[in-house]
Amino acid sequence: MNELTSALAAALPDGRVLTDPDVVDSYARDRTFVRPGRPLGVVLAQSRDDVVATMRWASEHRVPVVPRGAGTGLAGGATAVDGCVVLSLARMTAIRELSPQDEIAVVEPGVITADLDRAAREHGLMYAPDPSSYEISTIGGNLATNAGGLRCVKYGVTRDSALGLEVVLADGRVLNTGRRTMKGVTGYDLTGLFVGSEGTLGVITAATLRLRRAPRETATVAAEFTSLRDAAAAVSAIVAAGCQPSLLELMDRTTLQAIDDWKNIGLEPSTRAMLIAQAEGAADEMADLCAAASFVAVSSTPEEAAELIGIRRLAYQAKERLGQCLVEDVCVPRSVLPEMITKIEEVAVRHGVMIATVAHAGDGNLHPVFVFDRGLAEPPEEVWAAADEVFRAALGLGGTLTGEHGVGLLKKRWLSLETGPVAAELHHGIKQVFDPLNILNPGKAI
Amino acid sequence: MNELTSALAAALPDGRVLTDPDVVDSYARDRTFVRPGRPLGVVLAQSRDDVVATMRWASEHRVPVVPRGAGTGLAGGATAVDGCVVLSLARMTAIRELSPQDEIAVVEPGVITADLDRAAREHGLMYAPDPSSYEISTIGGNLATNAGGLRCVKYGVTRDSALGLEVVLADGRVLNTGRRTMKGVTGYDLTGLFVGSEGTLGVITAATLRLRRAPRETATVAAEFTSLRDAAAAVSAIVAAGCQPSLLELMDRTTLQAIDDWKNIGLEPSTRAMLIAQAEGAADEMADLCAAASFVAVSSTPEEAAELIGIRRLAYQAKERLGQCLVEDVCVPRSVLPEMITKIEEVAVRHGVMIATVAHAGDGNLHPVFVFDRGLAEPPEEVWAAADEVFRAALGLGGTLTGEHGVGLLKKRWLSLETGPVAAELHHGIKQVFDPLNILNPGKAI
Repeated sequence: MNELTSALAAALPDGRVLTDPDVVDSYARDRTFVRPGRPLGVVLAQSRDDVVATMRWASEHRVPVVPRGAGTGLAGGATAVDGCVVLSLARMTAIRELSPQDEIAVVEPGVITADLDRAAREHGLMYAPDPSSYEISTIGGNLATNAGGLRCVKYGVTRDSALGLEVVLADGRVLNTGRRTMKGVTGYDLTGLFVGSEGTLGVITAATLRLRRAPRETATVAAEFTSLRDAAAAVSAIVAAGCQPSLLELMDRTTLQAIDDWKNIGLEPSTRAMLIAQAEGAADEMADLCAAASFVAVSSTPEEAAELIGIRRLAYQAKERLGQCLVEDVCVPRSVLPEMITKIEEVAVRHGVMIATVAHAGDGNLHPVFVFDRGLAEPPEEVWAAADEVFRAALGLGGTLTGEHGVGLLKKRWLSLETGPVAAELHHGIKQVFDPLNILNPGKAI
Repeated sequence: MNELTSALAAALPDGRVLTDPDVVDSYARDRTFVRPGRPLGVVLAQSRDDVVATMRWASEHRVPVVPRGAGTGLAGGATAVDGCVVLSLARMTAIRELSPQDEIAVVEPGVITADLDRAAREHGLMYAPDPSSYEISTIGGNLATNAGGLRCVKYGVTRDSALGLEVVLADGRVLNTGRRTMKGVTGYDLTGLFVGSEGTLGVITAATLRLRRAPRETATVAAEFTSLRDAAAAVSAIVAAGCQPSLLELMDRTTLQAIDDWKNIGLEPSTRAMLIAQAEGAADEMADLCAAASFVAVSSTPEEAAELIGIRRLAYQAKERLGQCLVEDVCVPRSVLPEMITKIEEVAVRHGVMIATVAHAGDGNLHPVFVFDRGLAEPPEEVWAAADEVFRAALGLGGTLTGEHGVGLLKKRWLSLETGPVAAELHHGIKQVFDPLNILNPGKAI
């Protein structure tokens, strides 16, 4: 330890600060290829007080702090910068309270997303936001990125489940935002402001989250199509019919092939796309609306339903077997989903890049995954060129650069295309109010 | 006109600026008793450019601007201050776009809330937020206060339907926030920050709003109870059973009596409370759960359903017939609704004040209405004393001062009890970023 980290260790209980370079390095990356800076050390916070002490020390010495949950982010938001301290919240794992009567839970940021969901289900409730990584991601990381997931199409994103927060500010002061009630309009929406701010405004040390009634029935439909356009048309038909799906996922051929190569799901050669859908009480209706499908299955048991959704949840890992992945995250108005899919296919061919796409189709949120050679340190030029075209196409169709992953480092160079100079100025003004020394996750998100 | 207002009139098309004192006075109040200041004049904006010109002039001359929709607010948020210009958005009434495919509408701020809902229903959709005043309130005012309503219990508040905004900033610059897509996490949540900011951060000149599928069936349950506690217990039972009500309203005896005196609804002498509930496909189940009711009716036609809900929508006007009203708006965790109701009754008796309560019971949002003598300029001391006790009781039960009406002027003196000094400092910091001259609705909300 040097003088700085010794002072930090002295301000914290024993064992909280790690400085061994190999260990520190394992906390420096998220799930992207982005090459991290070299941190001074890692703090393994176990309490709010640990976070307060860390932020006081960081303010005093003007040391950048990179907050971190499980490191499952896909935008470089938790990537360490040179000379920073990585502040891990992963050990703050208490579910402090779970009230079935009020349908809320108060949790620490290190709680694994799926663990909270399971705890809620013991009471007939659920925690709705379910990013694909929910078995390994943390609530804190989900809040920092305003994570989405498969069930967003019905229940909204993480922000829609966040009622109140306990936040440690850059200078170590503690702020409580929001409320325990379903509604509340006292003051500005600071809760909503922290959610999705990617660790740049404060460190979340507890959250009051809304739980929801778990659906009574979960019959699942899986439909295979010989064209992507037919699958996209079925998405429109399902939404227009008012089925109110709680899950409506689309996978393209490249994705399905990767899953089939890995798990042998019996993929037909003619299948170009698969839809997986759930809606309370509307499984048969949705199956009927997939009239153009070459094959439709409706689950008849919860196990079958879980198996069908399980195929979708394999998608990302299956693609990681093919090479390194640049996972993109554009979102477009639902009506132009077919155009966006066509554009992605066209860009892939023109640039000679492998793009495997899954979509939270009911939301218009597409994840084109650009696969590139494992030996490369970062995506080759043609991948960036293709990604650039995809981003601009999404914006041109009235869409957004990121539906649920965040801006982090990866998307910063396109940010101004979407938000413009007035918004940028306001963002920096807000940042200045919360973090005048610019020590909280500097260089990210805005 | 004086020199200032002449300069304003010169910057705008003909007929936009009113300075006749009697006319100006009619734009100076909202629906509270709060005595307004004396404005310089009123701007009747018809376009974004009118708003831009007004804000440029106001910045140049440092004139306060009080934005205003229909003036149906219940917290004094649109009350004029001395020397201000009242900026009415009521004439900006265009629904610029309504896309059934994307389930969004782009509207101007003067659109009447129920008009947007009706326009959406032509396509099988609805605009969910429905404050009790929705036949006369505007979307702009709803956004400024983050208005709630009867359907919030299922569909959330106004913020949950706001996807993006066009805002004119204090200096006249135009900002576009948010998106047209269902999801999006690019940058800080400026949309959410403007919603509920009560005109203190910018003037909303257009909004992209989320529409939702209108429910297929609207059978309505009305149940009368001989005790308020039994009615509150039925609320808990309905929620716990997973009926997912889209409307769950409670009225106390005093409210029902006021409605009966006006419209003769045949109120039984023993009835102490009435519940009105809707849930897709669960009307009979909800009726069964009102086991302790002295009378239960389930509508069998849409007309009957509308009639039952119509009783609830009469509540506020019925109370206004009794005297002047201080309409309060506390919200508590649902589990303590019975305690809060008991407390309100006890406070009413002890202070000798008439309090008539309606509640969006499924949300724990109570509107205790303090009725006082029509001859008084403002509520007498005992009303404020009773209100003070009600606010403190709500906060003590884990609740909030305002579930959906806003802080405005009326609730400012209790604000610090809920939010504390750190939040106050951040609020003023944010205000400074957006409105460094403090000309936008000064003295309100924060």
